[in-house]
Amino acid sequence: MGRMARKLIHKSSRKAGQSPGTLLHIGAKQIETPRISIFDYGARQLNERKTASVEECLAFRESPTVTWLNVIGLHNPEIVSKIGLCFGMHPLVQEDILNTNQRPKIEDYEDYLYTVVKMLSYDEKTNELDIEQVSLILGKNFVITFQEKEGDVFNPLRERLKNPEGKTRKAGADYLYYALLDTIVDSYFIILEKIGEKIEALEEALVKHPRNETLQEIHALKREMIYLRKSVWPLREVVSTLERGESKLISKPTMVYLRDAYDHTIQVIDTVETFRDMLSGMVDLYLSSLSNRMNEVMKVLTVIATIFIPLTFIAGVYGMNFKYMPELSHPLGYFAVWGVMLVVAGTMFLYFRKKKWL
Amino acid sequence: MGRMARKLIHKSSRKAGQSPGTLLHIGAKQIETPRISIFDYGARQLNERKTASVEECLAFRESPTVTWLNVIGLHNPEIVSKIGLCFGMHPLVQEDILNTNQRPKIEDYEDYLYTVVKMLSYDEKTNELDIEQVSLILGKNFVITFQEKEGDVFNPLRERLKNPEGKTRKAGADYLYYALLDTIVDSYFIILEKIGEKIEALEEALVKHPRNETLQEIHALKREMIYLRKSVWPLREVVSTLERGESKLISKPTMVYLRDAYDHTIQVIDTVETFRDMLSGMVDLYLSSLSNRMNEVMKVLTVIATIFIPLTFIAGVYGMNFKYMPELSHPLGYFAVWGVMLVVAGTMFLYFRKKKWL
Amino acid sequence: MGRMARKLIHKSSRKAGQSPGTLLHIGAKQIETPRISIFDYGARQLNERKTASVEECLAFRESPTVTWLNVIGLHNPEIVSKIGLCFGMHPLVQEDILNTNQRPKIEDYEDYLYTVVKMLSYDEKTNELDIEQVSLILGKNFVITFQEKEGDVFNPLRERLKNPEGKTRKAGADYLYYALLDTIVDSYFIILEKIGEKIEALEEALVKHPRNETLQEIHALKREMIYLRKSVWPLREVVSTLERGESKLISKPTMVYLRDAYDHTIQVIDTVETFRDMLSGMVDLYLSSLSNRMNEVMKVLTVIATIFIPLTFIAGVYGMNFKYMPELSHPLGYFAVWGVMLVVAGTMFLYFRKKKWL
Amino acid sequence: MGRMARKLIHKSSRKAGQSPGTLLHIGAKQIETPRISIFDYGARQLNERKTASVEECLAFRESPTVTWLNVIGLHNPEIVSKIGLCFGMHPLVQEDILNTNQRPKIEDYEDYLYTVVKMLSYDEKTNELDIEQVSLILGKNFVITFQEKEGDVFNPLRERLKNPEGKTRKAGADYLYYALLDTIVDSYFIILEKIGEKIEALEEALVKHPRNETLQEIHALKREMIYLRKSVWPLREVVSTLERGESKLISKPTMVYLRDAYDHTIQVIDTVETFRDMLSGMVDLYLSSLSNRMNEVMKVLTVIATIFIPLTFIAGVYGMNFKYMPELSHPLGYFAVWGVMLVVAGTMFLYFRKKKWL
Amino acid sequence: MGRMARKLIHKSSRKAGQSPGTLLHIGAKQIETPRISIFDYGARQLNERKTASVEECLAFRESPTVTWLNVIGLHNPEIVSKIGLCFGMHPLVQEDILNTNQRPKIEDYEDYLYTVVKMLSYDEKTNELDIEQVSLILGKNFVITFQEKEGDVFNPLRERLKNPEGKTRKAGADYLYYALLDTIVDSYFIILEKIGEKIEALEEALVKHPRNETLQEIHALKREMIYLRKSVWPLREVVSTLERGESKLISKPTMVYLRDAYDHTIQVIDTVETFRDMLSGMVDLYLSSLSNRMNEVMKVLTVIATIFIPLTFIAGVYGMNFKYMPELSHPLGYFAVWGVMLVVAGTMFLYFRKKKWL
Repeated sequence: MGRMARKLIHKSSRKAGQSPGTLLHIGAKQIETPRISIFDYGARQLNERKTASVEECLAFRESPTVTWLNVIGLHNPEIVSKIGLCFGMHPLVQEDILNTNQRPKIEDYEDYLYTVVKMLSYDEKTNELDIEQVSLILGKNFVITFQEKEGDVFNPLRERLKNPEGKTRKAGADYLYYALLDTIVDSYFIILEKIGEKIEALEEALVKHPRNETLQEIHALKREMIYLRKSVWPLREVVSTLERGESKLISKPTMVYLRDAYDHTIQVIDTVETFRDMLSGMVDLYLSSLSNRMNEVMKVLTVIATIFIPLTFIAGVYGMNFKYMPELSHPLGYFAVWGVMLVVAGTMFLYFRKKKWL
Repeated sequence: MGRMARKLIHKSSRKAGQSPGTLLHIGAKQIETPRISIFDYGARQLNERKTASVEECLAFRESPTVTWLNVIGLHNPEIVSKIGLCFGMHPLVQEDILNTNQRPKIEDYEDYLYTVVKMLSYDEKTNELDIEQVSLILGKNFVITFQEKEGDVFNPLRERLKNPEGKTRKAGADYLYYALLDTIVDSYFIILEKIGEKIEALEEALVKHPRNETLQEIHALKREMIYLRKSVWPLREVVSTLERGESKLISKPTMVYLRDAYDHTIQVIDTVETFRDMLSGMVDLYLSSLSNRMNEVMKVLTVIATIFIPLTFIAGVYGMNFKYMPELSHPLGYFAVWGVMLVVAGTMFLYFRKKKWL
Repeated sequence: MGRMARKLIHKSSRKAGQSPGTLLHIGAKQIETPRISIFDYGARQLNERKTASVEECLAFRESPTVTWLNVIGLHNPEIVSKIGLCFGMHPLVQEDILNTNQRPKIEDYEDYLYTVVKMLSYDEKTNELDIEQVSLILGKNFVITFQEKEGDVFNPLRERLKNPEGKTRKAGADYLYYALLDTIVDSYFIILEKIGEKIEALEEALVKHPRNETLQEIHALKREMIYLRKSVWPLREVVSTLERGESKLISKPTMVYLRDAYDHTIQVIDTVETFRDMLSGMVDLYLSSLSNRMNEVMKVLTVIATIFIPLTFIAGVYGMNFKYMPELSHPLGYFAVWGVMLVVAGTMFLYFRKKKWL
Repeated sequence: MGRMARKLIHKSSRKAGQSPGTLLHIGAKQIETPRISIFDYGARQLNERKTASVEECLAFRESPTVTWLNVIGLHNPEIVSKIGLCFGMHPLVQEDILNTNQRPKIEDYEDYLYTVVKMLSYDEKTNELDIEQVSLILGKNFVITFQEKEGDVFNPLRERLKNPEGKTRKAGADYLYYALLDTIVDSYFIILEKIGEKIEALEEALVKHPRNETLQEIHALKREMIYLRKSVWPLREVVSTLERGESKLISKPTMVYLRDAYDHTIQVIDTVETFRDMLSGMVDLYLSSLSNRMNEVMKVLTVIATIFIPLTFIAGVYGMNFKYMPELSHPLGYFAVWGVMLVVAGTMFLYFRKKKWL
Repeated sequence: MGRMARKLIHKSSRKAGQSPGTLLHIGAKQIETPRISIFDYGARQLNERKTASVEECLAFRESPTVTWLNVIGLHNPEIVSKIGLCFGMHPLVQEDILNTNQRPKIEDYEDYLYTVVKMLSYDEKTNELDIEQVSLILGKNFVITFQEKEGDVFNPLRERLKNPEGKTRKAGADYLYYALLDTIVDSYFIILEKIGEKIEALEEALVKHPRNETLQEIHALKREMIYLRKSVWPLREVVSTLERGESKLISKPTMVYLRDAYDHTIQVIDTVETFRDMLSGMVDLYLSSLSNRMNEVMKVLTVIATIFIPLTFIAGVYGMNFKYMPELSHPLGYFAVWGVMLVVAGTMFLYFRKKKWL
């Protein structure tokens, strides 16, 4: 969990005092060597390079076709700096791309739109939520994306791009930009489905045999919800800004699609909030059913003790060594005492039963 | 309950990566064969077809009379696609109609209004809330509705349409659209009445004999409230948008009626919120009265034990086998001990009584 | 309490499917025969009829003087329908007058203002909050009020109307309308005062001897607060709409008075919220002081048991029947054991005292 | 506490039904005889009358100098009525001045500004928060203040007025009005400081030895916070309205000072909210530390009982009177039993230690 | 903690009644002698004076270069007064600079911007959060900062200023002002990182061995969060006001940087809120796991007692001294009783096991 807490300090304190615009990678190194891939396409041509040097990229700067530059791995500030210089990005944008502790946001620099979003996935090994930062830059005829590490999220989109009849291929850079955003929003649904399954499993466990670990698992899920909210709520503002159509880089037909993406974002937020409500309800139900079970146990045990304590007292009385105890010498004394004890025990038992204490 | 959790993942993860506008039915198949019914009417004529083919529908596209197309069953994308093409619907609208995990919303496409709402009913068998998605499309002289399954909710409206003197018959498509929305909002009141009865029954159970199951039932109702809210809150926005009169498809006289529908929606939301408040209060009352009862039991039992433990001690003292115990040989020793024990028990009893511990 | 829950289903489900504007009384029949009273007045004349037929009312339609029609009892839709027709009310207004489950609201129909508010009173018999719906219609020179049952709330206003020097007599219909609203808002203060007294009494009971019933009474008050809020919050919007002066039926001098009524509404809301806060605090205080008392009891009892258990053990040891137990034959053995037991008990007692457990 | 609850019913129910504008003093009579004092000043002259009749006041109506009329004691409606008539106040203003249950508010009557605020002080005897209503009326060249009782809060301001070089003396009526408001806001800080000291003391008590009374004191402070909030939140609106400069009676230089007063109001609200947060945290800490202490006690006691119960059982076994019990006749039997008992007790003790139960 | 509570009374009560604009230092004296340092620079020259008299400062009033006056130590009102007079500051600004209990705010006096912010640091000795007030005044070509005590927070900025190639050196006073604000915001990240580490450590302690102190530490952290929020939330308004570009003192290129500072402020607020959520969750987890552990202990102990109490009763029975007890004389009686007791104990043990009570 410590790793999570650390993730929350967005801007590293080591950076305090640095001049703004200083390029410095903040975050964990997630990939060995940064890799750049290029997709340059128009309605009729397609040019894909899986690995390209920074210099090659720059050649596509002025091409009339739509160019998609995908940079994977951020720990080499030089690459960002070169691309930034070539495509005319503000020093603060370059700084923000490298700082993987950004909050999702959108900034309109007139010539280009700078967008930061979070992409979520489940780390299969640690079973922990994994948050990756993706920066998108939309220019007139290019889209540049910066990812922290390799991933196959954008692969279906690449396949669609390869289809010369696809809508994506015919539309402009703004549609590609929308398609990328949509893919990222869609990836949230996968996470939500996984969490939904976890909640389902926990609910069953809760009803059948509540354990102490159940609470810790609910707590862990609640914490994941905190991270999800932190990623999704600002995303809403991002997509909403786009959908209001304030940028001239977004064409009108694309805006209809952005409205759709906005709806999906709202759905994600809605589901996250519902999950939070459900988890809260589960904690209450867990605690009260645990306390109920505990109370039941204690009640039964105490009733047993309460029945036997007076009996033990009676036995104690006739265990006294007084010289003159008339009952002791009576031939039926012993059996009479047993009778008394049975009556006492029976009366108490029936009384407790009647009172529903047993 | 797992079924509920699954309902919350709105957009299936299987769809992630698909091109936007791809027609794919998302949701459970609720009916064997999709069925289309047509109602074409003006002030003087009425043409009803209970079962029609897609092609027949298209004939009514250009009729000057008001046409109501009702499609039941969504798992055949082709039907939606054909109707969509004929009535000029945007691909995203067609996609949304098929995806039954939509959030209630309204979208104005100038030529037509696309509305998604949720219709609620109680599944008599599982006693669970059943949520069905209804899509309404209002055009200049037509209304198209898409339902997931058969239902008799719209039947009273059909009866009213058959009455040639009725207001519905004389008014335009916008009034039909309002009447459909109003019918759906009215169906919420039936659900609320049922939930109100459940709350009533639970409250009585709570006061008379609180059980562990009571809490689980309250919890189940609270969860239903979560789903109700998810369906009703966005509906408020939908009707409010209509009532503000931003669409040119809605005539002014109909807007007065929409204001009425808006009032009803607010009433539903109000009642849902009040129910939530009541359920929260019930949980508190249940827990504290349960804990009170438990405390009472434990107190009585502990008091009994506390009275007998000193007595048992006294008996134990005179059960000791010391050679020289003067009391033992005294002729009245035994009775004196009984006296002492009675005094001790009586004093403790009175003391506990005075302290209100008994 | 069930009665309360039922009160919350605003629009009866039996009505679902009915055509909008259908006149149908929804709510309990509160009076045997509906009664209409008329107050027609100007600065110099006054015409009062305690019981009038519907037809008589209509005669006052065109009188230049101010006419106040008060209809008591709503279960005869015909009366509302006739008056509605004569004074030109929209069918939806007539429907809303008859449906006593309305949320407080105001609707401006240009020629007249339709207002629904709730009037509160305490049912002396059941000691429950009683909510009555009052509809007010303000026209150019008339005010029509619809009440569910007889009441003496408007009597002081009638007295003021009879005074030819009073401001009410000289002012127009809008001032009468304000005076009616003001009277209703003032009636809330009586309710609040009663609830304030109840809270006061409960607080004393809470400090002196908290009982299980105390909690249920707090709970009942909390529930009443929910109903009060439901009645008062929308009233705020109603009066605020009036005070903003958007209707041409309200003259400027009357608007100053409406601002005053708005202030009073805010005061009522403020007090309701404060009462809610106080009741919440009381629940907490009750629960924790109850738990404190319980803990104290259990602690004392457990301490007593804990002191005697080791003593009983010692007595048990010397009750053993071993042949060779040197202490048993010692002449002072018995007294020594008493000494040991006293020392053990005393030490434990002092230890528990020091630890503040006793 | 009852006195507090009663304070919350703002408008007395006895007044319900009265015509608006009826002058009636609502609130407790706080002073024997109302007293009026006058301060009439300009840059060069000063005219102070500690006790004046209503008629004398009226003479200052038309003086070009700034006149400050201070009325102490409100239970004589005639005084307010006469002043009201002379200075042209609306009947509703006069009514509001006499009703000491007003919510802080500001009303702009073009010719004058009517302001109601609450002044707080600590009643030294009952150690309860004392709330006094102060009405301020700012006219072109006069300020009229109405207080419920004598107090020395405005004395430092009077001293400043006597200084012919002071800013207050040279500025207009609006600056005097600001200075009065500022003095009242400043008086809140004294209250907050006292409450801060109480919180400090309570926190120390909480950590050192939590008692049941501690909780009641926290509860009492929380209640005081409710009253403070009720007085301060509306004050924010009052000062904010002034600061936005919508009244022509406030000159521009004075507005800078009002912004300062607004900052102070925000600071008061901030502190009140922080105190509320702190008190909530203290309740939680108190409850959980109390419950912790209780648990510790119960655990120790239960452990002691648990150790001795098996030992008592062993002693009981050898107290049985069977004829054939081989152990009893063994010469070392007694000592062996002691050994067994010591081993059992020791093992349990060590086990409980290891488990951290002791 | 008392020190903290005292910190919250922003404006000292001793000041109540003073004329506004009276210069009076409110707060603790944090440094022996106030010290003024000067940085006067342009693109080509730099003039630094580590210690300067007030009079020297004034010389830089009219210099065309950018002048940064840093005043450390506020308890000498004369210094503030002299500087205030020379640079034309409003008396209220001077008063606010001296009052270290200000809420972060920004005030636009057209010729200059007055900003109050809070700088946070950890007091290494007491391990408590230390809050210092910093006032910034931005004029046309000067920035004046007032600090309470010495600190090395601005040192990296001074180094950057000494670099003639740095952006800071070439830009105007507004950029210096931004750089100072940015440095202060950055200092929050250091605090958040420290708190993050504390939370991490506490979480580990919570899982491994929850102690009573753990709760107090969580409580202390929660309290620190209250102070952080109080400092950071108003800061958001400050930077947001700047970023909206309402002041003509801020040039357009600097506004891009202020947007960056605004993002950082939002990140700080976000993290503070997340920490608050996490701490709340931790309290719940702590309390419930503590209560779970306690319940476990009590259950085991009670089970042990419950098993032995019936056994002790059996032993007690055969300890009775009745003359005719057939079992006693049976040669195998003793062993049979042992058998019975073992069976009873075993049955109970197995039953408790099956019920999962052990």
